[in-house]
Amino acid sequence: MTRNTRYVCAPDSFKESLTASEAAQAMAAGIRKADPDAEIRLLPMADGGEGTTRALVDATGGSMRTTAAHDPLGRGITAEYGLLGDGATAVVEVAAASGLALLAPSERNPLITSSYGTGELIRAALDDGATKIIVGLGGSATNDAGAGMLQALGVRLLNDEGRELPAGGAALARLADIDISGLDARLHDVEVIAACDVTNPLVGPQGASAVFGPQKGATADDVALLDRALAHFAGVVERRLSVDVVDVPGAGAAGGIGAALKGFLDAGFRHGVDVVIETVGLPDAVRWADVVFTGEGAIDAQTRYGKTPAGVAETAKRYGKPVVAIAGHVGEGIDELHAVGIDAIFGIAPGAATLQDLLEDASANVERTAEQVTRLLMLGGE
Amino acid sequence: MTRNTRYVCAPDSFKESLTASEAAQAMAAGIRKADPDAEIRLLPMADGGEGTTRALVDATGGSMRTTAAHDPLGRGITAEYGLLGDGATAVVEVAAASGLALLAPSERNPLITSSYGTGELIRAALDDGATKIIVGLGGSATNDAGAGMLQALGVRLLNDEGRELPAGGAALARLADIDISGLDARLHDVEVIAACDVTNPLVGPQGASAVFGPQKGATADDVALLDRALAHFAGVVERRLSVDVVDVPGAGAAGGIGAALKGFLDAGFRHGVDVVIETVGLPDAVRWADVVFTGEGAIDAQTRYGKTPAGVAETAKRYGKPVVAIAGHVGEGIDELHAVGIDAIFGIAPGAATLQDLLEDASANVERTAEQVTRLLMLGGE
Repeated sequence: MTRNTRYVCAPDSFKESLTASEAAQAMAAGIRKADPDAEIRLLPMADGGEGTTRALVDATGGSMRTTAAHDPLGRGITAEYGLLGDGATAVVEVAAASGLALLAPSERNPLITSSYGTGELIRAALDDGATKIIVGLGGSATNDAGAGMLQALGVRLLNDEGRELPAGGAALARLADIDISGLDARLHDVEVIAACDVTNPLVGPQGASAVFGPQKGATADDVALLDRALAHFAGVVERRLSVDVVDVPGAGAAGGIGAALKGFLDAGFRHGVDVVIETVGLPDAVRWADVVFTGEGAIDAQTRYGKTPAGVAETAKRYGKPVVAIAGHVGEGIDELHAVGIDAIFGIAPGAATLQDLLEDASANVERTAEQVTRLLMLGGE
Repeated sequence: MTRNTRYVCAPDSFKESLTASEAAQAMAAGIRKADPDAEIRLLPMADGGEGTTRALVDATGGSMRTTAAHDPLGRGITAEYGLLGDGATAVVEVAAASGLALLAPSERNPLITSSYGTGELIRAALDDGATKIIVGLGGSATNDAGAGMLQALGVRLLNDEGRELPAGGAALARLADIDISGLDARLHDVEVIAACDVTNPLVGPQGASAVFGPQKGATADDVALLDRALAHFAGVVERRLSVDVVDVPGAGAAGGIGAALKGFLDAGFRHGVDVVIETVGLPDAVRWADVVFTGEGAIDAQTRYGKTPAGVAETAKRYGKPVVAIAGHVGEGIDELHAVGIDAIFGIAPGAATLQDLLEDASANVERTAEQVTRLLMLGGE
């Protein structure tokens, strides 16, 4: 070859063991052992789910920020969001302040949980001067159609006595009026991107309450009550603001936060992995590269549906570049991944091992596997 | 490419799960999934240790044979040996009739165990018309300098009253005379190859008794007694036959069977894996191939010392061919294997798994790994 070989390392996190950045570094270390002259770019990836903020911050040289916020039950917490390397883009995950993981199982109650904390994080991002805010939908404990988030941003949701509704989805049944005059004016100049992989409508049998309510603690009665409450909310929104938030694909995401983002913040909806691909500049990196490494803690047939390795492969194939995936667990049906452009997939386990051992040794095992793959690739390139 | 790609699959067995032949077939199945036009040769390998007879039989289209024989304690057993595809070469493993695995741990006693059964297998091979006999040294339960083997082949070992010595290494202390007039005359026209990876002399601190006696059940006193007995045996051999069997590298192999093969059957000593490489015709196959796959149940830094993947790599590198190894367990220090010509090494485990699971799924996992490796190799070749 007339020049050094160029590699892009664009893995997702290896859940419970490596952040995406750590996984990318382990890959790079292995590549360098095999090819000391390698030119390598690290692009930690995510798919819009857990770890997305961290990956985008790491990939762009941004910073993690914290702010005081309220959890789904209104308790004070410190929550994280990200400010990316461009200084203009913020990343807010719904899970950070409104996530199911913040509650004990016995505390789950979508009748009363509120997305207020997510609104606080958006406000903090505005305070930082963000002009573009990526909101990662997923992992929410709430079913309030984003009502809490809107309240935190200055919207007033009033009952028929003109008083602010209490927190939670159930209270939306008593919504009589909406006052958006107090909505944070900075939002007019901000682009909001909803990173979202579901297309559920706000209400009905495929709506937020019916599909996602039960996993947040809703009984069958709760689901019926919440579905009616959210339908009522949508009706008021339509009458007062002339905005349809019902028949919008993705409106039902994150307990209906999707509807609020769409109806009040004019958010653009994108697949999570596509948002990440664009934000980290994967297409440019892939064009530059000779080989693209990706990976994730577990890879199987489901990976093709919106997971990072599939998104990376799709991008790489647009430029005809080879893609190798490295995974902690290689599951069934990986033939389907070859069909979407992942050329080869290797597990990292060195032999019989417990999950605990694999999690602890993940970095060394990723490194060894990347080294061996690179050695193989160099056979052809010599 | 102007012609189909040619692959050689030359693995050792995956202990407790796949014979070498089964491992080669699994590799071939994976290669064909990735490269349907592949031309593949299967060369099941071994290193002179367990599984060598089976691998050589499988590689050459020979047959496994059985014969009545006696175990190390003189009990009647049915033991296997191999007749290779050329109809002229037999393979006898010491472990088959004189192996430690034939005894319960409490039965181990190198003072009295005899290599008689190994001599019976050699005699059976002669009956089959073999003109070349490969004797695999290793795994013996005996420390009798091959005395039992010699007796089975017609040699008389006499005490000072002219009576045949009883079985076992301890009795050699009373050896007064040797009568080789009854030695099977067919052996004069037979080439005997000792497949042997150790260079220990017959006696002394690095001798058979001191180094290998303890694992066969010898106490410290037994070791001293056996070492003197074997030294006495060697002295009688030298006086009567003018043959030095003491200072011969490998004389101490298999409890001194090495000495008997050298002194009485004029055996040539070769590394086990080299005997296999020559017998299966690996050099020709490698010359034909574009890529060489090898592998073994476990691969680590020790693999370089006489194990199949190292021998295959050494052969392949003489012809400049790439070598990929696939292993059930990838251990520490594999950098050293790259140095001896194994270009890349991949484990087969799909993730966290018990040893039992890996043993059960070995075929599918080898196949998947070979497929992924082939996919990667084809990226360069397209």
